[in-house]
Amino acid sequence: MASQPPRVQRLQSQMTAHSLDAIICTQPTSTFYLSGFNPIIYSDPVLVIVSQQSAPILLVHALRNSHARSSAWTPNIHLYGTWGQTPTLAPTWPAALATLLDRCDLPEHPTIGIEHDGLPMTQYTLLRHTLPTANLANCTPLLHACRAVKDPDEIAHTRIAATLADHGMEAAVAALAQPSTTERDAVLAALQTMHTHWAAQYPDIEICDFGSLEGGVNSGLAAWVLSGPRQSFGCDNPTPRVPVPGESVSVFVWTVANGMHAELERTAWVGDVNRAQQRAMQAASEIRMEVLQRVCPGTAVRELYRTAQRGYERRGYGAYLPGRIGHSVGLGPHELFFLEETEERMLQAGMVLALEVNLLVPGVGGACVQGSDTFLVTGDGWERLTRFAEGVIRVRADD
Amino acid sequence: MASQPPRVQRLQSQMTAHSLDAIICTQPTSTFYLSGFNPIIYSDPVLVIVSQQSAPILLVHALRNSHARSSAWTPNIHLYGTWGQTPTLAPTWPAALATLLDRCDLPEHPTIGIEHDGLPMTQYTLLRHTLPTANLANCTPLLHACRAVKDPDEIAHTRIAATLADHGMEAAVAALAQPSTTERDAVLAALQTMHTHWAAQYPDIEICDFGSLEGGVNSGLAAWVLSGPRQSFGCDNPTPRVPVPGESVSVFVWTVANGMHAELERTAWVGDVNRAQQRAMQAASEIRMEVLQRVCPGTAVRELYRTAQRGYERRGYGAYLPGRIGHSVGLGPHELFFLEETEERMLQAGMVLALEVNLLVPGVGGACVQGSDTFLVTGDGWERLTRFAEGVIRVRADD
Repeated sequence: MASQPPRVQRLQSQMTAHSLDAIICTQPTSTFYLSGFNPIIYSDPVLVIVSQQSAPILLVHALRNSHARSSAWTPNIHLYGTWGQTPTLAPTWPAALATLLDRCDLPEHPTIGIEHDGLPMTQYTLLRHTLPTANLANCTPLLHACRAVKDPDEIAHTRIAATLADHGMEAAVAALAQPSTTERDAVLAALQTMHTHWAAQYPDIEICDFGSLEGGVNSGLAAWVLSGPRQSFGCDNPTPRVPVPGESVSVFVWTVANGMHAELERTAWVGDVNRAQQRAMQAASEIRMEVLQRVCPGTAVRELYRTAQRGYERRGYGAYLPGRIGHSVGLGPHELFFLEETEERMLQAGMVLALEVNLLVPGVGGACVQGSDTFLVTGDGWERLTRFAEGVIRVRADD
Repeated sequence: MASQPPRVQRLQSQMTAHSLDAIICTQPTSTFYLSGFNPIIYSDPVLVIVSQQSAPILLVHALRNSHARSSAWTPNIHLYGTWGQTPTLAPTWPAALATLLDRCDLPEHPTIGIEHDGLPMTQYTLLRHTLPTANLANCTPLLHACRAVKDPDEIAHTRIAATLADHGMEAAVAALAQPSTTERDAVLAALQTMHTHWAAQYPDIEICDFGSLEGGVNSGLAAWVLSGPRQSFGCDNPTPRVPVPGESVSVFVWTVANGMHAELERTAWVGDVNRAQQRAMQAASEIRMEVLQRVCPGTAVRELYRTAQRGYERRGYGAYLPGRIGHSVGLGPHELFFLEETEERMLQAGMVLALEVNLLVPGVGGACVQGSDTFLVTGDGWERLTRFAEGVIRVRADD
């Protein structure tokens, strides 16, 4: 596998700055980020230890031995559990972890970072008992700061995810142009096209996602379609409903390539559009442009939200101001932070953002305009990674 | 939506027996189990309060208002957050939760159950501050005991998931019978068939799964295929590899219908089989039958494992004994417990189990036999819910 990516050294520098002797990662996104291994099924915990002394140490159940060795980039792989005759460090992960930490040459009372944001109480209690002399500190903010700026391998994979999303959107919109297409038909067309394209074009890319502790996500290529009154649901399985003229349809495509996500969302208008609806579409498009003009390193994330807010208010849509207008994208489709009033980060080159300036004007003759693209923050501005045509789409215009 | 399912009263009785005044659920599987609502995307927490005074109380972000009202069976739905002009109880979920608990007529120092197994430290800290006078108890074991026995609606949905899995397996096996089929081809065939069948046959059924806090799982219809040396990986994305004669191929199909999962796994043998391989196939099949003869209410789960262990040892495969031979199935594909030596539960009617008596004999001329079906424990034995033909499959026998 590839050599150690730059994020490890970046994290180690930050650990020194924050006086952390080691970090123990327990979240699927974090353990993948720092080892390269995603077992898809997490019913047996995966842990990664990061210290100053070595490459990250990956600890997995014996059941995952051959898979971990074939896909992790870190060379330090250790096993726990009891499985046939495979030799392991210990029958349980806490005991194996204690053994590995003993070898790490840590001080007598080390300060060890753990992930408060995702670590369940049960695991915390086990860690607390395993490390009786350690000072446990919350390292989630430090990890998130590291993850917010993407490494070159991550940006390359985000580009692939964005391309897969473009293909999915094309298929869904082509399906919706046919008169009797249901929400389900459009989603199935997107899924089929994305999976076929992935299978044919990307032999070395994985599309698995990060599961909960109870199950796995084998394919993170996802689409959903919400029509008419269902648009306000935000996310739902598609139904056998056929959109009717005068309605709009929201099409959402979320993809993943080697752990990195992309997001592409559009609104398709069925049949005629009235003047109020045209005005709403125009407003959403203009506000998005106003926000994009502010996207470059050094701009406060909150300032993007405030720019949008002024745009909504100036156009008479202040009552329909959404609580956020986008989010960071990476190992999660929604990860790390939202573009909202309470966010304190500044933009940095290498961040990846989904910008979604949506406008939902309820009621008869109202409008629901949803749209999202995935953007890379560059040294002097931005690059749009999803390439599908911008703006509202018209389908079945003669209906 | 449907009326309140029997699990609510079952849980309330258990709460009384364990002196719990209320339970606050925060895990996606639990909040769906006790409200009927799965928002798919969990970046804004969903909470459910269960007390003796009312139907479960669902607390969601204002963004999820219309979706929750359209799909939850509980009538008690409340909102938090700030979103346009939607009225909410409070800007944050802890503040809204405190308001709702004030209305619940609890004692001054209530005992409140929380989910230690899934609750992250950050959420625990917020709950602790929100409920300063409460005694917080771990209610995960109580919830799991309730979930282990399925309600009639859950069993009906498991049957649908099992049927979808049968269709997926048929498609994958048919694809593998063709000479140049790759792992990816077989998986794509299964995905396409399952989604098409779902879209056409089950207008009212959802196939979404429970996401992590960072993202959603829009389709839980999953398949993966591992051939030759990759069989020991357990779970991985399919590759462009074409299985070669003399190898076996593991086909895994996991499905979900309205939250309830099913699992169906088979081994397909490519070309000729040698005598040692035939013997391994025969052994796995016989051991599975021996275990099934013990499946009925009142049998200790551990006794199923011990029955398998005796079967492996008697046939000379003691060195290849797996650490578990199956698991409970329900709101997670792996949920609640494994069929293993350390499990202390007894079987009860209404439990759903995946029984997977696998046999991996490594090395040249070795064998990897994997198979799993989803079973319902009935009043006097069991019913197989997945119906695909049992045993090892032969494909490309002339190769």
